[in-house]
Amino acid sequence: MGMNVLNKVNSPEDLKKLTQDELIVLADEIREVIINKVSQVGGHFGPNLGMVEATIALHYVFNSPVDKIVYDVSHQCYPHKILTGRKHGFIDPDQYRSITGYTSPKESEHDFFTIGHTSTSISLACGLAKARDIKGTKENIIAVIGDGSLSGGEAYEGLNNAAASGKNMIILVNDNEMSISVNYGGLYQNLAELRRSKGECETNFFKALGFDYHYIEDGHDLVALIDVFSKVKDTNHPVVIHMSTVKGKGYKPAEINKEAFHYTGPFDLESGELLHKPSSENYVQITSKFLIEKAKLDAKVVAITAGTPGIFGPSHVREGYGDQLIDVGIAEEHAIALASGLASQGMKPVVGFHSSFIQRTYDQLSQDLAINNHPAVILIFNGGISGTDVTHLGVFDISLVSNIPNIVYLAPTTKEEYLAMVDWGLEQNEHPVVIRVPNRVVSTTESIKPPFDDINQYQLVEKGYKVAILALGSFYQLGEKVLKTVKDQIGLDATLINPRFASGIDESLLTNLLVDHQLVITLEDGILDGGFGEKISRFYADKSMRVLNYGANKEFTDRVNVDELYERYRLRVDLIVEDIKKHLD
Amino acid sequence: MGMNVLNKVNSPEDLKKLTQDELIVLADEIREVIINKVSQVGGHFGPNLGMVEATIALHYVFNSPVDKIVYDVSHQCYPHKILTGRKHGFIDPDQYRSITGYTSPKESEHDFFTIGHTSTSISLACGLAKARDIKGTKENIIAVIGDGSLSGGEAYEGLNNAAASGKNMIILVNDNEMSISVNYGGLYQNLAELRRSKGECETNFFKALGFDYHYIEDGHDLVALIDVFSKVKDTNHPVVIHMSTVKGKGYKPAEINKEAFHYTGPFDLESGELLHKPSSENYVQITSKFLIEKAKLDAKVVAITAGTPGIFGPSHVREGYGDQLIDVGIAEEHAIALASGLASQGMKPVVGFHSSFIQRTYDQLSQDLAINNHPAVILIFNGGISGTDVTHLGVFDISLVSNIPNIVYLAPTTKEEYLAMVDWGLEQNEHPVVIRVPNRVVSTTESIKPPFDDINQYQLVEKGYKVAILALGSFYQLGEKVLKTVKDQIGLDATLINPRFASGIDESLLTNLLVDHQLVITLEDGILDGGFGEKISRFYADKSMRVLNYGANKEFTDRVNVDELYERYRLRVDLIVEDIKKHLD
Repeated sequence: MGMNVLNKVNSPEDLKKLTQDELIVLADEIREVIINKVSQVGGHFGPNLGMVEATIALHYVFNSPVDKIVYDVSHQCYPHKILTGRKHGFIDPDQYRSITGYTSPKESEHDFFTIGHTSTSISLACGLAKARDIKGTKENIIAVIGDGSLSGGEAYEGLNNAAASGKNMIILVNDNEMSISVNYGGLYQNLAELRRSKGECETNFFKALGFDYHYIEDGHDLVALIDVFSKVKDTNHPVVIHMSTVKGKGYKPAEINKEAFHYTGPFDLESGELLHKPSSENYVQITSKFLIEKAKLDAKVVAITAGTPGIFGPSHVREGYGDQLIDVGIAEEHAIALASGLASQGMKPVVGFHSSFIQRTYDQLSQDLAINNHPAVILIFNGGISGTDVTHLGVFDISLVSNIPNIVYLAPTTKEEYLAMVDWGLEQNEHPVVIRVPNRVVSTTESIKPPFDDINQYQLVEKGYKVAILALGSFYQLGEKVLKTVKDQIGLDATLINPRFASGIDESLLTNLLVDHQLVITLEDGILDGGFGEKISRFYADKSMRVLNYGANKEFTDRVNVDELYERYRLRVDLIVEDIKKHLD
Repeated sequence: MGMNVLNKVNSPEDLKKLTQDELIVLADEIREVIINKVSQVGGHFGPNLGMVEATIALHYVFNSPVDKIVYDVSHQCYPHKILTGRKHGFIDPDQYRSITGYTSPKESEHDFFTIGHTSTSISLACGLAKARDIKGTKENIIAVIGDGSLSGGEAYEGLNNAAASGKNMIILVNDNEMSISVNYGGLYQNLAELRRSKGECETNFFKALGFDYHYIEDGHDLVALIDVFSKVKDTNHPVVIHMSTVKGKGYKPAEINKEAFHYTGPFDLESGELLHKPSSENYVQITSKFLIEKAKLDAKVVAITAGTPGIFGPSHVREGYGDQLIDVGIAEEHAIALASGLASQGMKPVVGFHSSFIQRTYDQLSQDLAINNHPAVILIFNGGISGTDVTHLGVFDISLVSNIPNIVYLAPTTKEEYLAMVDWGLEQNEHPVVIRVPNRVVSTTESIKPPFDDINQYQLVEKGYKVAILALGSFYQLGEKVLKTVKDQIGLDATLINPRFASGIDESLLTNLLVDHQLVITLEDGILDGGFGEKISRFYADKSMRVLNYGANKEFTDRVNVDELYERYRLRVDLIVEDIKKHLD
């Protein structure tokens, strides 16, 4: 296919000049561009294919950026980017990386927020609407939100407030009957009933909150979309448009296997098969294998996910949990409170989160869980310094979790230690236990010494002198390398410690080090501010020990190569040893 | 009135033996007990008076603690406590303090969680229900939640999941048409319509989520309550009972002035007047006076509260803001996202939170606000070490807020500095600015030197030698006293620094101190873990400076006298000077 129509479109203005037939061709062309790019470099796929026609219709009817569109999560913004001056980032392979996968005000005046977490669009749009009313202007404010995102509490808070505003606010609910995985919750019964009745059924969640309501049966029908959008344009009150779309529309494998194609790596266009299959063992496999076996033996074990079930295995693997796996939808707060309730009755809940999403539960960790000291287990995946998007960084969890009283935050260094910690966490009854899942699988033949009942007891792995290396969690192997290099280059037998506990200090061990050590190195895979190393620095602050803390700076990084970050933070063996030498002089 | 019936009731079992007439007398007696106690020592008032009959009916019909009742916020649990073996804590003045104001599993097997934050009950109850189903038992699980709490996202996440469980779960919605203040949001229109139609109107929020629904027109009618509770007892599916009650029922001044009597200090029973009126100036007055004037001059100023409008003044004062004050309901997440949206358009939002509730917004602070670097201002009230309940501690905010990149966390030391900072925060366009409102009003005649554009530039107040005191925010005056005592007792002119910025370090100033200082003292009114002092310790960790960090331990304290805590943490002038002497030897 050529790009006859898309070639003519460099802005929403150009789009408005097209005929209806051209718009339909444009949709095909945009779809092909997205399929082509994502098949080569990966990205969000299903959500974008489902939004092609709706995005064209939005820009055809409304007047962006005067009219303001806010995309929830913004993983469905590729068509929007293609239509707002950024198609080069989707067509030209040399420029694929020049455009982020999420909305970005730095890229375009058509984007208003950098967004990557779910359920925030309506609340942010309420801010735009209120600003408009203060200024006395008349633009339309539009929030685009998927049905999956509607399970999150912030979305509901936004709906509740938007409904009561009594002013122009258009909420486009893109109902593709899916979250990342399937949806769960009472709301989804109502959405199904609304779809079945073509929006006519008596019970209507959106009307109950006070919205005017429109239903679009086929969210890929450009004529219908343009018709409804035109009707609600310049409305003087809050409106919900509920449209039914097909996630992955236009690419058969994605329409069939919606979860796998929500976000995908590069794949073969013909077969839909991933080009790079994970060859080595990973922690999703390790975790699911362990938990499924554990759950079979013990009915009290309940795995809980908040809309990211992939953490517990791909869908065919997850069947192994039976009803001992609960997906609460994108409702992280509920997940933690649910776990607290289960733990209070002697059950063994194990919650899995990506590091970036544990941020949504600080209050629940503190109030529902930690104050009550209920022994739930929480696994944190993808914690650590990475080259990922600014909205999905995994460097904050140690600072967030480890400073809440009563929570034991464990940082395992190997597969075997990880599994021993998960097992211990599930079997103990004393504390909420959070475990930071390592990112690389390293096996050990060393014996692991559970239980871990002696809270904050570090493991002294190698006893040396002068220099002690406290290498936390996934940076333990870095610590081993520093140890070896110090021996090789300085001839010094340094001390190596596996702290295991990110949330506290081993006062006895640290005090002993004062006898024959002069420098302590801490290594942690997260920000230094509020982290593990600062606890060590505080302990030694009034004593004769010198301490060097290694970790990430307090900063938001956006798709910065991890090696560049390691260099910036001096998290390299050579740089660390250089620092040690300086301090030993 | 005597306590003829209450005298016979020491447990729910006793209650079940009473006649209907006796139950009605019991309600009067419980009400009198509550009115009497709260008038003497203060406490939650309106919420408890509204729940007297419903609590009696719950314990009459259900079989606590086998059947499990979870109270949202649990500030309405006094009748429950009185009926479950703890009436002495309400009748005997010597034992008033022996019983907490919230549910507490330590006190009674009839309590399942220590609860103090809002909107959590349904999610916690879901955990109890799932545990029941795993165990294969048959008890009823009941969540009691006020209409105000329904505006919180966690409550909605709970409703959405509870509705889909398809199992026994009874949610009692206590609709008194009030949050702490008036309600705001689309849901409340629907609740009003449900009340008007006696639960019969077509549009029904709870039915839309999939609940079976019952309406009780008079939530003080014991016969009606018992009738409906009996009908739903042992139900096999999720049920909402929506009852209309009068907040403050039975005490006229509280029925009229619902906000003032939500929580009250001791008051005169006859007049309803507070016994101890705030005589001195406080930061609510200071803030409201400043902001109302500011808002009158600048239409861009928008104050935002999440269900705690008292922060911006009592209701008659708040009228001064006009429509430049928004109460979003108990929806903290929405409040921060709304502020981000407003700030993105050049508005000047100023959000007010109690320290304990900022915990509900970590992800919004990080994602909606800080990543986007929008210049909203957030005021944090009641931060610091206090003798309050474990669920409302104010010691965590520095650790939570100050480790998020891009956020400037200011800690003013005087009224004048506070106002200068608020003003600067509203006028600058560079950063999200969080300001920790001091707890005691201290005025200064010193000139304040705004602007604060040199981020992390500390103020060197007194330049001395050997010892430097970094006294943050509300502990600045403690630092002044330490300075004076060091002079008096040791004859040493120490250095005094007002750091002003809790979120970063002044590297230049700290480096200069190395020249002629050997000991740095940090004072902060919050936990040490992840706090301000640890940043200072880290900075000096590889240098020759000794550092002593003073602040709270990482622990949950529950109604521990603040002087006891100060002693425990050595936060007393004499103890600090003692430590300094030791280090100078």
